[in-house]
Amino acid sequence: MALSNRYIKLINSLSIRKYRKKHQIFIAEGSKLVLDLINADMEIESIFATQEWIDEKKEISANISQYINIVNEQEIKKISKLSSPSSVFALFKYQHYVLNGDIFDQKRTILFCDEIQDPGNLGSLIRSADWFGIDTIVCTKNSADCYNPKTIQASMGSIARVKVFYCEIDDFFGILPEEYHVLGAYMEGEDVSKFPFKKESVLIIGNEGKGISLGVEKYINHKISLPQSKSPNKSSQAESLNASVAGSIILYELSKHLK
Amino acid sequence: MALSNRYIKLINSLSIRKYRKKHQIFIAEGSKLVLDLINADMEIESIFATQEWIDEKKEISANISQYINIVNEQEIKKISKLSSPSSVFALFKYQHYVLNGDIFDQKRTILFCDEIQDPGNLGSLIRSADWFGIDTIVCTKNSADCYNPKTIQASMGSIARVKVFYCEIDDFFGILPEEYHVLGAYMEGEDVSKFPFKKESVLIIGNEGKGISLGVEKYINHKISLPQSKSPNKSSQAESLNASVAGSIILYELSKHLK
Repeated sequence: MALSNRYIKLINSLSIRKYRKKHQIFIAEGSKLVLDLINADMEIESIFATQEWIDEKKEISANISQYINIVNEQEIKKISKLSSPSSVFALFKYQHYVLNGDIFDQKRTILFCDEIQDPGNLGSLIRSADWFGIDTIVCTKNSADCYNPKTIQASMGSIARVKVFYCEIDDFFGILPEEYHVLGAYMEGEDVSKFPFKKESVLIIGNEGKGISLGVEKYINHKISLPQSKSPNKSSQAESLNASVAGSIILYELSKHLK
Repeated sequence: MALSNRYIKLINSLSIRKYRKKHQIFIAEGSKLVLDLINADMEIESIFATQEWIDEKKEISANISQYINIVNEQEIKKISKLSSPSSVFALFKYQHYVLNGDIFDQKRTILFCDEIQDPGNLGSLIRSADWFGIDTIVCTKNSADCYNPKTIQASMGSIARVKVFYCEIDDFFGILPEEYHVLGAYMEGEDVSKFPFKKESVLIIGNEGKGISLGVEKYINHKISLPQSKSPNKSSQAESLNASVAGSIILYELSKHLK
């Protein structure tokens, strides 16, 4: 397929959540990310690549030749969302997950994003979850979209290995087994380095500006805290950490207890 | 001062590192960030604010009235770098730090950014350093600019409390006292959760794609590692963590030893 103006328009519309959802397709760019998603068996819609890329990655490109469209760098520039377009641009199909009680069968640890706004933060959390062996993330419906190009870019392929569900707050907590820890990070709380984490945990990550919402807070049964180190040289200090950094540090502590 | 076209042009040029450096001025937007920088005694160049903001923040705005220019929201839109412009836009003056042996007088812990590329990552690291009581960051000259609007935004005011130096690799390590740990994170290394950190440490954060450079690697005397948690359900897994996340987790472990 050639890159017709109509198709360019369709691809550009995928920057907007509404159109991604309509077409059930997301964008991935850059050789490392695209190869990672192909190797993780994500369902391919189309791949636009330069002849050089196809030749260089012969072992992989030969197996997926039916999806590949040869384009030149100028054409990739027209559809790329990156400041430095790469030699490969791909469209993958959405994955469909239905939230039900089955996700608790394996007593898995779950990351719960309570209105995470920044797509980069969500992507970075998906990547950290993957690193720390957690394969399930639940997001409130007003959280960033896991298929936003910035989220996909920041997740570095981990979107293929971590299931991201979107649901209403009460629908999720309504089916959560009672034995679960529901953990929220606050300025005051039990020190994460001493907290007796267990596998059956839901870790809440609050919104970047507003923190944890009232609708989620009522389900929290353990308030935890990341201790700040006071510096003797400074009169004031940072009030908080970046949401994906704070979430990742807690996942790191939690993962020590999962071994 | 009214927002003349000439002044708008000057402000817009501050998105580019070269012009920021020429004018020695950086941009900060949003009420929380601007107030945080004012309270931390950053030197103000100009503040552009709506009458509503000035009235609402009377206690502060009265003390800095000589710097304030009343503008309307339309005018802020013309200079804002944010997708949702705020009611206040400020210009602050660069701080000047000269790197010399004095920074080792207090046996301080230092974060060393080896070609960190993403301005958001650098800002997030500045914020984490501030949280964990570290007040000194040294960057290689090809690292992102600490005064990039995205860095300032991500640092959430911590830029006022953390000194960021730029220098040549050999100039820094040439004056580093011998007793310092120089720590680099690798896939294989001593487990950070068991490593005997000490205050006299330089923690290296490598480039997002390429990792730690050869020029810096030769100075490392301890290779450390952030253990990955293997998931039984997955055949592949994330290869690495986001640079600011990895750096922040190590700072977190290090900070436990500084108390």
